[in-house]
Parts: sequence; C-alpha cells; structure tokens
Amino acid sequence: MSVSFYTEEIVKQVDKLMLDSLASGSSLYEAAKHTLLGGGKRLRPLILVSVSDSLGGKRESALHAGASVEMLHSFTLVHDDIMDQDHMRRGRPTVHVLWGTPMAILAGDLMHVKSYELMLRALKGKSAEVMSKVLSSLTNAVVVISEGQAMDMEFESRAEVTEEEYVKMISKKTAELFAVSAEIGGLLAEIDGQRISNLRDYGMNLGIAFQIADDILGLTADEKELGKPIYSDIREGKKTVLLIKALHSASEQQRKKMLKALGNRNCSREELEDAAKIVLELSLDYATMLAANYSTKALQSLEMAGLSGGPPLLFLRELPNYVVRRRK
Amino acid sequence: MSVSFYTEEIVKQVDKLMLDSLASGSSLYEAAKHTLLGGGKRLRPLILVSVSDSLGGKRESALHAGASVEMLHSFTLVHDDIMDQDHMRRGRPTVHVLWGTPMAILAGDLMHVKSYELMLRALKGKSAEVMSKVLSSLTNAVVVISEGQAMDMEFESRAEVTEEEYVKMISKKTAELFAVSAEIGGLLAEIDGQRISNLRDYGMNLGIAFQIADDILGLTADEKELGKPIYSDIREGKKTVLLIKALHSASEQQRKKMLKALGNRNCSREELEDAAKIVLELSLDYATMLAANYSTKALQSLEMAGLSGGPPLLFLRELPNYVVRRRK
Repeated sequence: MSVSFYTEEIVKQVDKLMLDSLASGSSLYEAAKHTLLGGGKRLRPLILVSVSDSLGGKRESALHAGASVEMLHSFTLVHDDIMDQDHMRRGRPTVHVLWGTPMAILAGDLMHVKSYELMLRALKGKSAEVMSKVLSSLTNAVVVISEGQAMDMEFESRAEVTEEEYVKMISKKTAELFAVSAEIGGLLAEIDGQRISNLRDYGMNLGIAFQIADDILGLTADEKELGKPIYSDIREGKKTVLLIKALHSASEQQRKKMLKALGNRNCSREELEDAAKIVLELSLDYATMLAANYSTKALQSLEMAGLSGGPPLLFLRELPNYVVRRRK
Repeated sequence: MSVSFYTEEIVKQVDKLMLDSLASGSSLYEAAKHTLLGGGKRLRPLILVSVSDSLGGKRESALHAGASVEMLHSFTLVHDDIMDQDHMRRGRPTVHVLWGTPMAILAGDLMHVKSYELMLRALKGKSAEVMSKVLSSLTNAVVVISEGQAMDMEFESRAEVTEEEYVKMISKKTAELFAVSAEIGGLLAEIDGQRISNLRDYGMNLGIAFQIADDILGLTADEKELGKPIYSDIREGKKTVLLIKALHSASEQQRKKMLKALGNRNCSREELEDAAKIVLELSLDYATMLAANYSTKALQSLEMAGLSGGPPLLFLRELPNYVVRRRK
C-alpha cells in the first residue's frame, strides 16, 4: 500500500505490545505466542489506530487498544482451528497440532483475557463513560463472534443455507470485529454517536467484503502464498456465498459432482478440484461483484464519518479496495 | 448451614442473573447453560455478596458481580472437562460429551465473555477507579487461573512434584477466584487497601483449604453424592497433595502398586482401589490437617478485615469450617 511508511510503524508497535503481554518462558505462553509470530496483516489494529489518529486521539492508548483487538482475533483463530480441525495457518502448523488440543484451548483462553488486559491499559486515565462504552463494545463483539462461529458450524450440516443467512453469519463471525475496531478508534477519541455509527458501518461493510474475498481466495489463491490449504471450505462443508450461489444455479450433473466433495473430509484431490472448478465457474463473477459492492458501501460510510486527511485517512480509504484485491 | 435463609435467596438471584444472561434458544446457549443447571454450591458469589453486604455495599451490584465470578468459574469447568477428558460433572454428562468438543469450546468462550458482561453491569454508575480495579482483578484472575491449569496439566507428566509446587498450583487454579471474589466484594463497597488485602487472604486460604478437601473427597466421597467418578485424579495422574505425600512415604511395594494406577487411563477398578487405599493410608491424616490449617488461617484473615456482624459475617465465618467438612 502507498501508505506503508505509516502502517509499518503501527504494526511494529502493536506486535511489540502483544508479545510483551505474553512474555514468559512457559509452554502456555509459547503456545499463545505461536499464532502471533506467524505474521498476519494486522488490519484490525491498523483500522483502530488510523481512526484514532485521524481524530487526534492519543496514540499510546490506540496502540494498546489495537493490540487488544488483534489479540482477540488471534484467540478466535486458535479456537476456530481446533473446531474446524485445520492443521495449517499462515504457513505454519496450528497451535493444537504442535501443543495438543488441551494446551491450545488454554492458550486461546489466555489470549482472550489478555485482550481485556491490553484494553484496560488502553483505558487508563479515561472517564468511566468511555471505559464503559469501549469495554461493552469489546464484550458484545465476543458474544456476537461466538454466535457467528456457532452459525458457521451449524451451516456445515445443513443442506440449504440462503445468501442472507450467509451474510448474517459473516457479519457476526468476521465483520463485527472490524466494526468494533473502527468504533473503538472513535470512542477513544470521544467523538459523537452519529459518527461512531458511521465508523461502525465502515468496519462492518469492510469486514463483509473482506470475508467474501477470503472465501474467493480459499478457492483461487496460490496455496503457498495463502499459507493454508485451498479448497478446505469445500472439504469442511462450509457454506460460503460461492457455494450457495453455485448450488443454486447448478445443473443436476454439476450439483452431483459438487455434493461428492462437499463436507467430505475423505474425498480425493481430484474430486475436490473438480468441485472447485464448477463452483468458480458458477459463482466467481457474482461473488466478486458482491464483495465490490460492500467495499463501495464501506467507502461511503467512511466519507460520512468526516475524518481529517493525511496518512491515516489515506490508509482507511485504500483499505476497501485492498481487501477485495489482495492475493492472500 | 445455619444461615441458609440468608444464602438461599442470594443463590436464587445469582442463578437467575446467570440464566437470563444466557437466554436464547440456540444450541450454543443451551450448551452454555448446561453446567449452570447442574447445580453447584455457588460459594464464590456467596462470598462476594456476603462481603459486600456486611460492608453495606449495594446489593444489586454485588449480585451481578457474584453472577460474573460464578459464570467465570463455570467457563473454566467446561474447558477443564475437555482438557481432562472428564465425562461426568455434578451428576450429569459434561458439555463436550453432550454437544461435542467444538461446541463445548465455544460455549466456554461465551461464558468467559458473559462473565465480563455481568461484571460491566455490576459496575454501572461506579467511578473509573473502581471500574478499573475490579476489572483488573477479574482479568488478572483469569490469567492466573490459566497458568494454574497449565501447571496442573504439566504435573501430570512429571514424576516428582513437591508439596510447595502443589500449593502454588492450587493457589492459582482454584484459590485465586475465591480471593478475587472476596476482594471484589470489598472493592464494590469501596473500603481501603489493607482491608482488601485481608479479604484476599481470607479467600486465598479458604480456596486452598477447599481444594485440599476436594482432593480428599476425590478419594473418599460417595460417588453418587459427589456427582463424578472418584479416583479419577489417580487415573489422570493428578499430583494432589495426597499423592505427593503418599509417594514420599511409601515402601517399595506400596510405591509399585500406586504407580501401576497413576496416570493409567486403562487400569482396572481393582488396581485403582488398591492404589487409592494405599494413598489414603499414607496421607489422609496429613491432608486433613493441612486443610484445617488453611481453614484456620482463613478465619484469622477474616477477623482482621473488620466486617460488621449479622448473617453475612456468620456465613463467612462458617465457610472455612464447612469447606473442610463437606461431603460433596
């Protein structure tokens, strides 16, 4: 991105805060650090800090809050990987593969609470009102994300899922944390309720675009670049918008081929590839357009929030485009 | 207990708050409610509310905080049961047995964050200082409890664990939440730091006595009354103080018999019973005395906290005695 001089510094500082908060030699802490050390784009803290910066919020506070939302995100990844039996993440074996399921559950729990610890540090010196608003947003986000993950799992065993249900699920599972990141950036800078709501909309639409793009990448990316196996959504029976659309418009023969691979953890690579080819043929254009629509909506919400110019706003403006065009 | 007219009302109200916070028809929420519906003694909220009551704290606030610490406790039970592969709890199958491991992980995560939601409600209208202190205590408790659980798991695969290490482990895994419950009761009533520290000591010593008594019950209780299989500590290789003491003073032959069952998930009922008999012979008196010592220390700390009389103080005074004499 053209504002990398701006974002790189934030990522460096957020990473330091996260690693410092997990500094300890024991295997519990090593397991917790593992996912963080695998990299990641740090989009959520970048959103939070950029929003705060462009509103003149205190940088130190925003960095801690940014580390908090990224820690929260990492906690959900560690637990999701256990639930989904995923073995690779960011090009490395997942925590439960390396340390076993019990330690991975515990490492996730530790990261969950470390997210609160970091947020409490971000809120040092703030009024009771700001504390209460920020912590309620964070807390509500975890409730919503958990409900989204439950929906995602429940969809795996359902034959029919509508596009509307899919959008609701990813709004909860993925987009809520983008929304809350933008929101907390605004809350820390103490702006008024309408602008907070615009910021939330920005994050929500951005997060939906991000997840649709993620689902596309799960079928089209270079596996090495992506850092995890492609086609795993099909193997796990995940009802992505691509699959929903494809099942909807498939011929009888195409449908049969797709169902052979869908949710079948033992299907062959060839069957997987066959199914993926059909899914893409029937849905890639549609999903790309859908992601682009949410990306546009994100931009519109951003403009309504009335942020000041400069690198942080440039970054926030580039992001909706970036999330739908990225290759990993 | 003689003050049951006082405690029953609290338990009823705390239970209602917990169940209300998980009201929803979805399986995620059903799974989360399961452990709560199995009963339990609700000692942690009873401590918190009694401390607050005896200091003239606001009842509504203390009830929400009580529901929060009990919700936190229940979350750790759900995750611990997965980690320890325990199938029964409070006379009912555990959450992961009924809903599967993925849903049990998620239900635990939901309860974890619901604990924060309830605490935020308890803190409504409080100053930033009180909010910050209470939430830091709660947050630090989860970090400490996670470290304690990691120690407990690590001890399973170790040949030698000292009594000192055992006490450190149960201080973290079990007693910290008793300490924090007493502490938060005091923080909500806004008393000074020295008395908070006395209350913490009360909870800490009480919690240690409670856990030693729990370990004794794991070898001596009536299985039906206890609601879970006895001897499971031996089968899982848990290094309880009874086992540490017994291994320390055993003859070569006794040691051999104990090691046959220790950490051996496939040993026969007879081998288990043989091992348990030896453990009890060599350590029951010692463990009982140890628990009684911590129980006495708890009482001493309580007296130093200078609480006012009446049913709440009566309850807090009875508790150290109760935890070491209970049969389940």
